Amino acid sequence: MSKGIAKRADDYSRWYTDVVQQAELADHSPVKGCMVIRPYGYGLWENIQAGLDRRFKETGHVNAYFPMLIPESFMQKEAEHVEGFSPELAVVTHAGGKALEENLVLRPTSETMIWSMYKKWIQSHRDLPILINQWANVVRWEMRTRMFLRTTEFLWQEGHTAHATAEECEEETLRMLGVYADFAENDMALPVVQGIKTEAEKFAGAVRTYCIEGLMGDGKALQCGTSHNLGQNFAKAFDVTYQNEKGERELVWATSWGVSTRLVGAAIMAHGDDDGLVLPPKLAPIQTVIVPIYKSDEERTATVEQSYKVAAMLKESGIRVHVDDRDNFKPGWKYSEWELKGVPLRLEIGPKDLEKDSVFSARRDVREKKGFPVAGVAEAVQDRLDTIQKAMFDKALQFRTDNTHRVDNWDDFKSALEEKGGFLYAHWDGDGATEAAIQAETKATIRCIPLDDDTEDGVCVKSGKPSKRRVLFAKSY
Amino acid sequence: MSKGIAKRADDYSRWYTDVVQQAELADHSPVKGCMVIRPYGYGLWENIQAGLDRRFKETGHVNAYFPMLIPESFMQKEAEHVEGFSPELAVVTHAGGKALEENLVLRPTSETMIWSMYKKWIQSHRDLPILINQWANVVRWEMRTRMFLRTTEFLWQEGHTAHATAEECEEETLRMLGVYADFAENDMALPVVQGIKTEAEKFAGAVRTYCIEGLMGDGKALQCGTSHNLGQNFAKAFDVTYQNEKGERELVWATSWGVSTRLVGAAIMAHGDDDGLVLPPKLAPIQTVIVPIYKSDEERTATVEQSYKVAAMLKESGIRVHVDDRDNFKPGWKYSEWELKGVPLRLEIGPKDLEKDSVFSARRDVREKKGFPVAGVAEAVQDRLDTIQKAMFDKALQFRTDNTHRVDNWDDFKSALEEKGGFLYAHWDGDGATEAAIQAETKATIRCIPLDDDTEDGVCVKSGKPSKRRVLFAKSY
Repeated sequence: MSKGIAKRADDYSRWYTDVVQQAELADHSPVKGCMVIRPYGYGLWENIQAGLDRRFKETGHVNAYFPMLIPESFMQKEAEHVEGFSPELAVVTHAGGKALEENLVLRPTSETMIWSMYKKWIQSHRDLPILINQWANVVRWEMRTRMFLRTTEFLWQEGHTAHATAEECEEETLRMLGVYADFAENDMALPVVQGIKTEAEKFAGAVRTYCIEGLMGDGKALQCGTSHNLGQNFAKAFDVTYQNEKGERELVWATSWGVSTRLVGAAIMAHGDDDGLVLPPKLAPIQTVIVPIYKSDEERTATVEQSYKVAAMLKESGIRVHVDDRDNFKPGWKYSEWELKGVPLRLEIGPKDLEKDSVFSARRDVREKKGFPVAGVAEAVQDRLDTIQKAMFDKALQFRTDNTHRVDNWDDFKSALEEKGGFLYAHWDGDGATEAAIQAETKATIRCIPLDDDTEDGVCVKSGKPSKRRVLFAKSY
Repeated sequence: MSKGIAKRADDYSRWYTDVVQQAELADHSPVKGCMVIRPYGYGLWENIQAGLDRRFKETGHVNAYFPMLIPESFMQKEAEHVEGFSPELAVVTHAGGKALEENLVLRPTSETMIWSMYKKWIQSHRDLPILINQWANVVRWEMRTRMFLRTTEFLWQEGHTAHATAEECEEETLRMLGVYADFAENDMALPVVQGIKTEAEKFAGAVRTYCIEGLMGDGKALQCGTSHNLGQNFAKAFDVTYQNEKGERELVWATSWGVSTRLVGAAIMAHGDDDGLVLPPKLAPIQTVIVPIYKSDEERTATVEQSYKVAAMLKESGIRVHVDDRDNFKPGWKYSEWELKGVPLRLEIGPKDLEKDSVFSARRDVREKKGFPVAGVAEAVQDRLDTIQKAMFDKALQFRTDNTHRVDNWDDFKSALEEKGGFLYAHWDGDGATEAAIQAETKATIRCIPLDDDTEDGVCVKSGKPSKRRVLFAKSY
């Protein structure tokens, strides 16, 4: 089988596009910058949704749905917000055969719509907190798009919470950052750095933006999720106050936080290899594929029957399994296809396996092969899947360790970035002008000021001015 | 507690709006015709989604996602489709600060976008069938809107399948109609009539539209779901052919089918009473609410503790339970609130119940009360919920039986419609002009030509011309 996938080392960008297309994750649509998420890619997104939605509900959140169409004037109520989003808006000017009295924009994010509603719902301290999440599509008119990573329309979730105090608000912001990190590390097998964005990189309208940053296979960083402390900015813009226990009116505190279909891109780039996708079991739409091996019709009947028997045992245990009993493809062709699609574990069942009442298994991640008896197959497969999940995280963590560098002067900074890529921990003087100069010269940005990095006296790699801590630099998507 | 809900008999329409608002299912948004689905209403929708999505997957379908923005020219490729949908389109003319080269419309339905993609994906008979569903928002610029029943933007699912033969296509159309009927009857406790729409009422672009029709509490019909056999209309419009086993090119056959957030409206109107919502257990976001009853602080501590203990037992069994331990409301106030919100079963735990290690239960649907021991409480509650689910269906079915009339002449038709409302089974001559005349005079439409109605010789109630079967007339939403 010719997979038609570029080698990662030759052309990472083409490799990515090839994998997205060949594994049938997504396809280009007739509308510029909009992609079609195909069933296999959407299956990945459904598992991402399930893992996040469960965590949101466990932390007390509920889902709701707000209109996609936002009056143009709403966007202008928060000064930074309008500045950040105006250039990316898509505008509905006509509907029902007539020009609208006021233009409506397609939501690029829903703070304005949601806070216009919170004004109606919040009167007293008893109405707080509000802990709402929304699963929705959003539109941002991007100039340079790339499937999953940056598309004109994308799917995401956006949490929008309202609180009585600044303390609760900050707690919630950090709680959701923690939820994202937990999801990334445990479900996506992707180690992430948690940190705070600089002023230049923060969300338009936020007081503080926290983020999780992952390292992709080409040594670039990918922002995987953000959690914003919005302070009282949107309460001010929409005049949302509550009566406290003393009977005084106070402005409400806000957070918002989101992750998107970009996470599918993260899963591809963090784990994929030259044969295609490598999916962590928790995200894989198909966790185990069973391929019957046969020559004669008689063997076909027996091995296919056994394959479905084993599949039923796995399904019973909640394992997502698929039997590939297509008669028009040879086993080797099927192996390549399921490797391309990143299925974590393949089971093969041939006449000899039938005799021994056993199955033969092959891991996608490390290509390790192993046989085990059909009796207890569900436990054995689950055990293998757990092993793969953990091994994939460990491998990604090792990769990050190998590609994280501490640099202490400008020459080292530039050469490390050029020769090795990856994450650079370096001192920065805290000045936006220095940050901009570094970006202009190297394309590296400050991904975040890590939360877990200890303070340390040093000097800025660029300006030589004193610095109290290292920050995380990288080239990024 | 003043619920502020109109009585159904006094003003059904206001009753509906009051229930939607007071039970916090939805709220008006700042954008005309667009509603906000509040968490409790969205919880209902999530359960509707789960019940349908499971059935879609069991019948071999997979989910995907297609762009919301559709080039205006696409809508014009199918003659009936453009005629039906053009008046309702919302149009994006500007984006990213510039006028677009071609206007984009917000999808009112996705046949055109999806068939433009199927053209890329379908080459051979081996590529068929394609069985894709999409959960999405759609926009139709409606003049007269009503929350959940008809809104400018609404949430729905739309299945779009592609088949090699006319037979398979028709089979799929009917299979999904059956899935909808099964969901309505088993999960929503709503008996539905399955039938075919007349030419006047069918989907713009379909060969045949099948539907399920439910009877609401005010005697009006509500179309709850539709399944369309699109024949080769969209394959022709988008030039989608496949190579059959003989190597010849043939046009592909299509179906589409959808249900929407309108089903939330159906659940409200089919079961609600003057105290508010009455939710079938399978849809209820909260299936059981536990209210501790106490006077002293000591009693409070003990009954609240017991409430959470019982809640944990129910949760363990997969029952959706909520403990209402708010200290600032009296039990009677809480009862009214949870009745308004339609929670199927209430448990009360007071000091005497503690002594006996029992709980006291009250059904929402028939107000029946009953105590049972805490030991085995999960089984007892599940049993009650199953009883309620069945009783609600039986009651709705009885209501439909009581409000279904067979009428044989024009005077009876008019008087039955005027005095009793409900479903009228009457003969019709099959002529669209007669159908239009009946609607003009009475506002009743042909809801469907039922699938399960036997043929019978008769004469059209309006024209007196011969007829071979009765059809279902009703006033409708």
